[in-house]
Amino acid sequence: MQHFYNAADTLIDDVLAGVSALTDVRIAEPSQHLRILVRADWDREHHGRDQVALLSGGGGGHEPAHAGFIGEGMLTGAVVGGLFASPSVDAVLAAIREVCGAAGCLLIVKNYTGDRLNFGLAAEQARQEGLAVSMVIVGDDIALPDSPQPRGIAGTLIVHKLAGWLAAQQMPLETLSERVDAALPRIASLGLALSHAARPGEAKAPCAPELGLGIHNEGGVRRVEPESASEAVETLLAPLTETLSARGYAPPYVALLNNLGGAAEQEMQVLAASLLVNRRGLALSGVIGPAAMMTSLDMQGFSITLVAADDDLVSALAAPTTAPAWPGLNTPCAPARFTPQVSETTVPEHVERDAAVETRLHAAIEILRDSRQALDDLDARSGDGDAGTSLASGAEAVARRLDAGQLESARPGALFGAIGACLARDMGGSSGVLLSILFTAAGAELAENDDLAAALAVGIERMQRYGGAAQGDRTLLDALIPAVETLREGGDLALAAERAREGADATATMARAGAGRSAYLPESALQGVTDPGAEAVARVLGALAEA
Amino acid sequence: MQHFYNAADTLIDDVLAGVSALTDVRIAEPSQHLRILVRADWDREHHGRDQVALLSGGGGGHEPAHAGFIGEGMLTGAVVGGLFASPSVDAVLAAIREVCGAAGCLLIVKNYTGDRLNFGLAAEQARQEGLAVSMVIVGDDIALPDSPQPRGIAGTLIVHKLAGWLAAQQMPLETLSERVDAALPRIASLGLALSHAARPGEAKAPCAPELGLGIHNEGGVRRVEPESASEAVETLLAPLTETLSARGYAPPYVALLNNLGGAAEQEMQVLAASLLVNRRGLALSGVIGPAAMMTSLDMQGFSITLVAADDDLVSALAAPTTAPAWPGLNTPCAPARFTPQVSETTVPEHVERDAAVETRLHAAIEILRDSRQALDDLDARSGDGDAGTSLASGAEAVARRLDAGQLESARPGALFGAIGACLARDMGGSSGVLLSILFTAAGAELAENDDLAAALAVGIERMQRYGGAAQGDRTLLDALIPAVETLREGGDLALAAERAREGADATATMARAGAGRSAYLPESALQGVTDPGAEAVARVLGALAEA
Repeated sequence: MQHFYNAADTLIDDVLAGVSALTDVRIAEPSQHLRILVRADWDREHHGRDQVALLSGGGGGHEPAHAGFIGEGMLTGAVVGGLFASPSVDAVLAAIREVCGAAGCLLIVKNYTGDRLNFGLAAEQARQEGLAVSMVIVGDDIALPDSPQPRGIAGTLIVHKLAGWLAAQQMPLETLSERVDAALPRIASLGLALSHAARPGEAKAPCAPELGLGIHNEGGVRRVEPESASEAVETLLAPLTETLSARGYAPPYVALLNNLGGAAEQEMQVLAASLLVNRRGLALSGVIGPAAMMTSLDMQGFSITLVAADDDLVSALAAPTTAPAWPGLNTPCAPARFTPQVSETTVPEHVERDAAVETRLHAAIEILRDSRQALDDLDARSGDGDAGTSLASGAEAVARRLDAGQLESARPGALFGAIGACLARDMGGSSGVLLSILFTAAGAELAENDDLAAALAVGIERMQRYGGAAQGDRTLLDALIPAVETLREGGDLALAAERAREGADATATMARAGAGRSAYLPESALQGVTDPGAEAVARVLGALAEA
Repeated sequence: MQHFYNAADTLIDDVLAGVSALTDVRIAEPSQHLRILVRADWDREHHGRDQVALLSGGGGGHEPAHAGFIGEGMLTGAVVGGLFASPSVDAVLAAIREVCGAAGCLLIVKNYTGDRLNFGLAAEQARQEGLAVSMVIVGDDIALPDSPQPRGIAGTLIVHKLAGWLAAQQMPLETLSERVDAALPRIASLGLALSHAARPGEAKAPCAPELGLGIHNEGGVRRVEPESASEAVETLLAPLTETLSARGYAPPYVALLNNLGGAAEQEMQVLAASLLVNRRGLALSGVIGPAAMMTSLDMQGFSITLVAADDDLVSALAAPTTAPAWPGLNTPCAPARFTPQVSETTVPEHVERDAAVETRLHAAIEILRDSRQALDDLDARSGDGDAGTSLASGAEAVARRLDAGQLESARPGALFGAIGACLARDMGGSSGVLLSILFTAAGAELAENDDLAAALAVGIERMQRYGGAAQGDRTLLDALIPAVETLREGGDLALAAERAREGADATATMARAGAGRSAYLPESALQGVTDPGAEAVARVLGALAEA
C-alpha cells in the first residue's frame, strides 16, 4: 500500500464522498457518473435570480480545489472530472443547469485545452437553452513566460474569491466578467517541487528540485539548486516580482502560499518564515496560507502566487466566506516579542544559618563524594553507569553554595528550595530533575508548614506523579518511602535510616524495574544488584543519622 | 535537498517564526533561546485574574501542535523544546510566569517522561513562588494497552479545547483540573503510518504499514496489512471502540481525524469517507478534521481519536475559538443528493424541413465520406492520422439524423444546434468539441438573427477563444476565416469556397503550427503538408458551392 486510497478507479469519487460528508453541499447522485457539487442552500430560482452563480472545476487530484471552495462568498458549485482529466461537456452543462438562474452563471476555468473546450462547449449549449453564461480563463502560471497559453494554477483561487465577492454584491454578469477579466494580469504564480505526484499505486517519486512543475505532473521548466527553503522562496519571488513589475504593478502585493500536497506543515511554516521574516525586501500587504489549496496529489512542493491587489481585490480577499478550504487573509506583522523572566541564582541579603543543619548537610555531601565510584559501579550493571557521578555533581553544587555561605540553613523551606534549584541546574539528567522536584515540592510545603516528614511526603507524591514510578519499581523510592513513613509515624532519623537500608537492600531481589532505563533490562541482569538511587538514599540517611 | 528546511539546527525556530508572523501571538525574544509563544492579547493581571491560563507544549516537530492552538477558547500559550525534545524547566517556568495570574495556570502535558519531569519541576518551582499551578497529563494512545504510561498524542487537542472552554467560563483552577482529569478516560487515540518521519537531511522513509507508531518515530506495535483506506480505518476503529466500551462509554462518539504530517489531502478525504460513509455501523455525533493537528514531521500516516463526549465535551468541542489550527467540529451527514439534468437526444414533434438545405447537407456528408482516406493521410504526416476518420464519423452521425428525418433543416438555428450536438456526442476528441462549439455558438446566434455569415463569425470567435488558436496557426481556421469573411462582405458561396481553398493550400507553407498536436513537430516535418482540418473545410465548402 503506497497511499491511503481505496482503489485507483474510485479515487476521485471517494475523495468527493469525504468532502460532501463534511461540507454543506448537494452532490449529483452517483448513478449518472457526473461529479457535480453545489452549495446546499443554493436555489437557482431564488438566489440565482439576483446573484450570478459561480462554477469552477477541472480534473480531480487538486483537492481541496475546487469543491472545498464552495460556499457563501466563493463558488456556487464545482464540476470534477477524473484524475487530472477534464469533466465532460455533459457534466458541465448539467452543473450550469443546476445553478444558473436569471442572473446568469460565470464559469471559472483553468487554462488547459480540455477544460477550455469542455466548459466552452457546455457554455455554448447552455446559451442555446437561453441561459446567460460567461467564462473566464485563468492562466496565472508564469513558468513558461513565452507561452501563448499559460496554465491556470493556484491563482485560480484568487479569482474564485474575487468573483464570489462581486457576485455577493449582485453585480450583473457582464460587469462581473469584465471586472474579473481585468484582474487576471494582476495575478502571477510559480511552483517548485522536490517530488512529482505519485499516481495511485505508484511509489513516491522524489526528483531534483524542479521549477515550474505543472499540477498534472508536467515536468518543470528547469532544474534548480536551492540549498534551503529561503533560497527556494527567492527562486520563485524573483521572476514573480519581475513579471508583475513588467506588467506595471508595483508592490505591496498579497502572497498566497500553497502546499502542492505533500509538503509537511513544518516545511510550509519554514517557507512562510522565509517569505515573511527573512525577506523584508518585498512589501507584502497580506498573506493567504500557508495551506494546501491547489494540490497535485502528494507532490512535495509549493507555489507562491503574488497578487497586485487593487481595492476590489483587497476587499474581496479579506471578505468572509463559508467555503471550508479558504484559509483567510492574514496581515503579516513583525511578531510582538517579550522578554521571558528566567530564574537567576539570587543570594538573599541576610542569610539565616544554622550550624547543626550545616553539619548534617556536610555529612550528606561527604558520603555522596565518597560513594561516587560504588554507585557508578552499581549503575553500570543496571543502567548507564553514571548515577554516582551525577549525584556527586549535585552534591558539589550544593557544597559550593554552602561553602559560600549562601544557603539559608536556618529556614527549611528556603533551604530545600535552594537545594532543588542547584540540583535542577547542575546535576542534569532526569534524575537531577526528579530530585529537584522532591526538594522543590517539599520546600514549598515546608515554607507553609514546619513538618519535615509531611513535606517530604508531598515531595515523594510529586516525584511519583511526574516520574511515573511506584514503590517496588526498583528506584530510590524503595528506600525513601519507608524512611519517610517512619518519620511520619514518629520514628527518629536513625530508625528511618534503618528502614531505608532495608528498602535499598530489597531492590536487589526485585524481578524487574518499573521505571527508568533499567526497565528495559531482563530480570537476570538485575538479580542481586541494588538500585543505585535507593543505595544512595540509604547511605545519605545513614550519614545524616550519624552526624 | 530533502525538505524545504533551512537548517536542521534552526528548524524549530524557523517553524515558530512562520507561526508567529501570521498568528496573534507574542513570542519570547530569541536571545534567551526559550521558545515560548503567548496569546498577544493576554494580560496576566487582567485576564489572568479571573481566568485560568492554559499552557501546553513539548518537543517541536508536531506542528501545528501546540502553538497553532493558541487563541481565545483554547491555549493561552505554548512552550516548545527542540525537535522531538522536551522544553527545559526554565522555559516552562518562564512561560508560567508570563501567563499565570491570580486565577492560576493549568499545564496540559503529553505523557512522556521528559515532558512530565520538566513541566512538573517548573510547576513546583512556580508554586514555590506563590503561583497556583496544576498539571494534567494526557495519555490517550491505546497502542500499548498494558502500558502503565500510555503516550499522549492527538487526543491532547481535545483536552486543549475542553480546558479552553471551561477556562473561558472562569471556572476555578481546582474544579477545572478535576473536570479535565475526569474527561481523560473518555479519549482514546490510535495511529497508523506508511512512513516514518524523516529527520532534517534524511530522505523519506516508507515502511510497511505500522499500527501504533509514536509521534517521535517510535516504531509501531505491530505491522498490519490493510489493503485499502477503508481497511486502515477499520484497523484503528476496532480497538478504539473496544477500549471505550470496556471503559463503559457507549457510542455515539466524536471522531478526530488527524494527519500525521505527510498524508495528502486526497488521502485524508478518502479516509474521512471511509470513516463516515462506508462505515455506517459506528454512530458518530461529530467529526473534527480531517486536518494536520498533531504531526510527526512528514510522517505519511493518520490517527483517529474517539471521544465519548458528555455534555461538557460536546459543548466544548462545538464552541468557537480563534486558535488558527482548530478545524472546528462538523456534524457528519448523509450528503444531500440531486439528479443532474443531462441532455437527451430529443426529436422535435414537428420537424420543419427544407429540401434545398438537405441537398447541401448531403453534399457535405458525401465529400467527408469520400475524403476520409486523403485526410487521414495528410494527418499522418502532421498528427495522429485520424482527422479524416473523425470527420467522417461526425458526418455519419449527422447523416443518421438527417436520414431519419429528425433534422430541422428549415430552421437554421435549430439545425446548427442539432449538428453541434451530434458532433459533441459522436465525433469525439478535441476536434469534435471544437466543431461542436462552432455549430452550437453559430446556432444560438442564428436563432436570434437570421444572418449565417455573422453567426459563423461568432462561432469562429468562440472556437478561437476556447481552442486558443489564431489564424496562421495551421488549423482549419486558416480556411474557415477567409471564407466567412468573404460571406460577410457579401461574397457568394462559390467565392467563399475559393478563399477557403487558397487558405487551405497556404497552410502547406506555414513554418510551424501554433496549436494542436502538430505544434510539437519541427518545421521540416510540416513543410508542404496541408493541414487536414483546413483541407476538409475547403473540400466541404467546395461541395456546398457546387450543390
